[in-house]
Amino acid sequence: MKTGKQKNQTIEKPAARTEEKIPQSNLPKVRIIPLGGLEQIGMNITAFEYDDTIVVVDCGLAFPTDDMLGIDLVIPDVTYLEKNIDRVKGFVITHGHEDHIGALPYILQKINVPVYGTKLTIGLIENKLKEHNLMKNTKRKVIKHGQSINLGCFRIEFIKTNHSIADSAALAIFTPAGVIVHTGDFKVDYTPVFGDSFDLQRFAELGKKGVLALLSDSTNAIRPGFTASERTVGKTFDAIFAEHKTNRIIVATFASNVDRVQQIISSAYKYGRKVVVEGRSMVNVIGTASELGYINIPDGTLIDIDQLKNYPDEQTVLITTGSQGESMAALSRMASNLHRKVSIKPNDVVILSSTPIPGNEKAVSKVINELSMKGAEVITQDTHVSGHACQEELKLIYSLLHPRYAIPVHGEYRHLVANRAIAESIGIPKENTLIMSSGDVIEVCEDYCMKVDHVQAGGILVDGLGVGDVGNIVLRDRQNLAQNGIIIVVLTLEKYSNQLLAGPDIVTRGFVYVRESEDLLDEAKCVVDDAVNDCLERRVNDWSKIKNVIRDSLSDFLWKRMKRNPMILPIIMEVE
Amino acid sequence: MKTGKQKNQTIEKPAARTEEKIPQSNLPKVRIIPLGGLEQIGMNITAFEYDDTIVVVDCGLAFPTDDMLGIDLVIPDVTYLEKNIDRVKGFVITHGHEDHIGALPYILQKINVPVYGTKLTIGLIENKLKEHNLMKNTKRKVIKHGQSINLGCFRIEFIKTNHSIADSAALAIFTPAGVIVHTGDFKVDYTPVFGDSFDLQRFAELGKKGVLALLSDSTNAIRPGFTASERTVGKTFDAIFAEHKTNRIIVATFASNVDRVQQIISSAYKYGRKVVVEGRSMVNVIGTASELGYINIPDGTLIDIDQLKNYPDEQTVLITTGSQGESMAALSRMASNLHRKVSIKPNDVVILSSTPIPGNEKAVSKVINELSMKGAEVITQDTHVSGHACQEELKLIYSLLHPRYAIPVHGEYRHLVANRAIAESIGIPKENTLIMSSGDVIEVCEDYCMKVDHVQAGGILVDGLGVGDVGNIVLRDRQNLAQNGIIIVVLTLEKYSNQLLAGPDIVTRGFVYVRESEDLLDEAKCVVDDAVNDCLERRVNDWSKIKNVIRDSLSDFLWKRMKRNPMILPIIMEVE
Repeated sequence: MKTGKQKNQTIEKPAARTEEKIPQSNLPKVRIIPLGGLEQIGMNITAFEYDDTIVVVDCGLAFPTDDMLGIDLVIPDVTYLEKNIDRVKGFVITHGHEDHIGALPYILQKINVPVYGTKLTIGLIENKLKEHNLMKNTKRKVIKHGQSINLGCFRIEFIKTNHSIADSAALAIFTPAGVIVHTGDFKVDYTPVFGDSFDLQRFAELGKKGVLALLSDSTNAIRPGFTASERTVGKTFDAIFAEHKTNRIIVATFASNVDRVQQIISSAYKYGRKVVVEGRSMVNVIGTASELGYINIPDGTLIDIDQLKNYPDEQTVLITTGSQGESMAALSRMASNLHRKVSIKPNDVVILSSTPIPGNEKAVSKVINELSMKGAEVITQDTHVSGHACQEELKLIYSLLHPRYAIPVHGEYRHLVANRAIAESIGIPKENTLIMSSGDVIEVCEDYCMKVDHVQAGGILVDGLGVGDVGNIVLRDRQNLAQNGIIIVVLTLEKYSNQLLAGPDIVTRGFVYVRESEDLLDEAKCVVDDAVNDCLERRVNDWSKIKNVIRDSLSDFLWKRMKRNPMILPIIMEVE
Repeated sequence: MKTGKQKNQTIEKPAARTEEKIPQSNLPKVRIIPLGGLEQIGMNITAFEYDDTIVVVDCGLAFPTDDMLGIDLVIPDVTYLEKNIDRVKGFVITHGHEDHIGALPYILQKINVPVYGTKLTIGLIENKLKEHNLMKNTKRKVIKHGQSINLGCFRIEFIKTNHSIADSAALAIFTPAGVIVHTGDFKVDYTPVFGDSFDLQRFAELGKKGVLALLSDSTNAIRPGFTASERTVGKTFDAIFAEHKTNRIIVATFASNVDRVQQIISSAYKYGRKVVVEGRSMVNVIGTASELGYINIPDGTLIDIDQLKNYPDEQTVLITTGSQGESMAALSRMASNLHRKVSIKPNDVVILSSTPIPGNEKAVSKVINELSMKGAEVITQDTHVSGHACQEELKLIYSLLHPRYAIPVHGEYRHLVANRAIAESIGIPKENTLIMSSGDVIEVCEDYCMKVDHVQAGGILVDGLGVGDVGNIVLRDRQNLAQNGIIIVVLTLEKYSNQLLAGPDIVTRGFVYVRESEDLLDEAKCVVDDAVNDCLERRVNDWSKIKNVIRDSLSDFLWKRMKRNPMILPIIMEVE
């Protein structure tokens, strides 16, 4: 298998970056196709394609943005994979976060190919497959760090990285065009809580041999410096536990951050406290991590939530979900007295071991306020470190691999731009960097790296059991309904005579307090009466015209009178 | 006039803080009543009451929280003032921010009393009064720092502070019970851009004589250290201007931050650039500030936006609104090509001179991403300082005034708690600190400071021209509509026979793509048909029962089939 030889020093003409004419080249070419949408943070899914081989890296979901009213989650549009299903060899997963594995249960139903990942990653995927009753039909294979798998004409090597979930991996994809490295989400932690540090030596080796392209995590590319080691949080926990020997301690964190939970348990054990794990996802993940040996819980440390009452407060710790202020998570329910088993007390110390994910700031503040009102002390300082590489780590990775082409992934556009700037800062020419958009088909070979085509891609909305049945029109209606409510005007006409048999009646929802706005609604009724009578007198018998007249006259009236624009829905019933 | 003598050192029994029995005391007592809601950040309005005198400090509005769908703004419920209108002597305003003056045009229509404030504050209030056609009927008086006004049995002195708007004032309210100091929003800026620094000497003097109670700004009480001087931002501007001599520069900031705008203009002038001011509120505020002498614009520096084309890019600066990512503000419109006169170009440098107000983080990211996609360089580092005091400043103020009672104001609950902790840290006993809730009646005298009563208070929602006609029921409907859409089931019955004349028809909005869900809607129609027929066969002629049967059967069907819960609205029309 050929590995790309790097020739950064001898570039004769810069590779084209955009939709310019594709240069001639007889060299083997690999195609990279991001399907999930880079704009749509979260859905990580990227196809790598050569000849009869398509390998898909990750298969994540996204959580809805604010304007996606009523939507539960967003999954990637894999029409392209469905059309090329014969060539798809498998899903290769970098780590077990929702934005990398969450869409698998949906997508595997259409693209039933094997799934490859490290032990914990596969364990977490299996939790999902069980929930969706897909265990029997899904082939899965656990791969160790350092191991490779052959999929079609690709060889894919799993390389140890560090991240805010254990068992994360970078991928070296050996292709006929050269080696492409995908970092997955990563940080460089020289003193990880569990397992080895990032395999920098292997990266150096790959770099020495020559790397064609690097796809690297951009999340923290706007942050200077190095991300602190996970271990620093453990020290903070120890200090807090030492200082609060007379309080109950509650720690909220991400369920998937197994190492974080390990450190809380270690501090608890050290200070002689029993530990309760609470919140569905926390119980699930810790269960899986514990079964698979990713977490070490000293015997007798873990107790059931119902045993809590048997221990004095100062001998207990609760580890719980809800660090993002999620209103249905355990911490929020405890703060607002809605939790069946635990209520916040004035002597409690609550540690939020997380930072708000952008968009959750207000929800987190709300929980902190509620906890404060209950008299709890809330600690947020130095209780979290990021799982993503900052600028100096990215420079390190670029320096080790020195790829011919740099393709920033995983981040908002501004983060991708910042990552590109870092690539340039360590000597990758700007024309050898490329920012992809969802659905872009990027062709990469020794001679160039550029967009050559575009395929269908993006997000599909999931609402309840409905996948894809809510789209822009429905969302626009929901937004309009949300802002202004609805006024329904209903009337019954006789079929041939067009005589008014009943109505027009006005019914509103989400518009005004009906009881306190009787005058207004009476006036609106008159406006509609006049509009309808006028139509009927003029013998208008095109119902869509009658509806338009009703809509326009009522809309005018309400805007003039109230400066509001509710949705107006005229319904005409016909009686023969 | 008696000023309260401080006796912190000789407290014999701690003052009660909550609804315990009110102690006996023959000393004069002042009442403090926060009306706007401390939970509802934004609406600052506090009544101070003694005998026949009520003076109201500030009269702000709040912007709606996420769950207040379709609401434009929130104003305080002043029922208490209306009931006691004969005693209300005036509004005393600390500074010209919306959350301190924004509700005046609404409230003055009910409580028409004089308004007192410093020159710029009154200037900004007058802009609002003009808009609402209230200039003729509103008495206004400009007060200078150091001056006092007598209102009933209170004397109120305006004291120079610093804040993110010029001309801010703290108030010393001399009451028969003692001196109460209200800081307003403040920071301590030793090197302000315009005018004097905080009048610390006057605070020291008041403290020496004895202060009964201090109401102080809690916004930054969780932040250690000192807030940096506004001048530091000017240095950053100079550095950016020096570094980007070949780019057009666009600076987005808060319209009301006159000193910030001054510094941008100064940097522009220094580097030979013309300045365009863009965005309605920016033009308004800068117009007023310039007229009143709060901003110094060198001749020939300001140009009209239409003149922009006459100058090369590198000789221009745009100062614009939209630093919070507001979708209708000038910057967002420029970023998304919706601005009529300015589009972002690849060579532009955009400075966001602000930090996102909690809740606006995602909107700000969105604008940064859009600007980045257009190729602009976006600068956010060191381009903003807060207008609120951090912990060390609060300690300074407590140390100068050393009030008998500390009453934190202006902030979320967690900020109030942090401010209280600061008061305790400099020696105010915990039992002499008090956190108020909206509508609480706080009685304060030398002997105690406690809640003695509660009055109606809180927020009134404004939607378009409607004030108070949208409440919880309407909002709940809007939330339901937003999440799930609506299904309307309409049928026509003959009055006495109860014979079905037309329908049932199903109309949906915001529910599903109708075209792609025909099967589902057909099934739903069958469910409704069956329900209606069943009712009619059983001769049910209570319409509310028929409606309930329709609602229940359709709701069951949709939950089982789709796990969704749209609003279901059955409408029955009657034909005689």
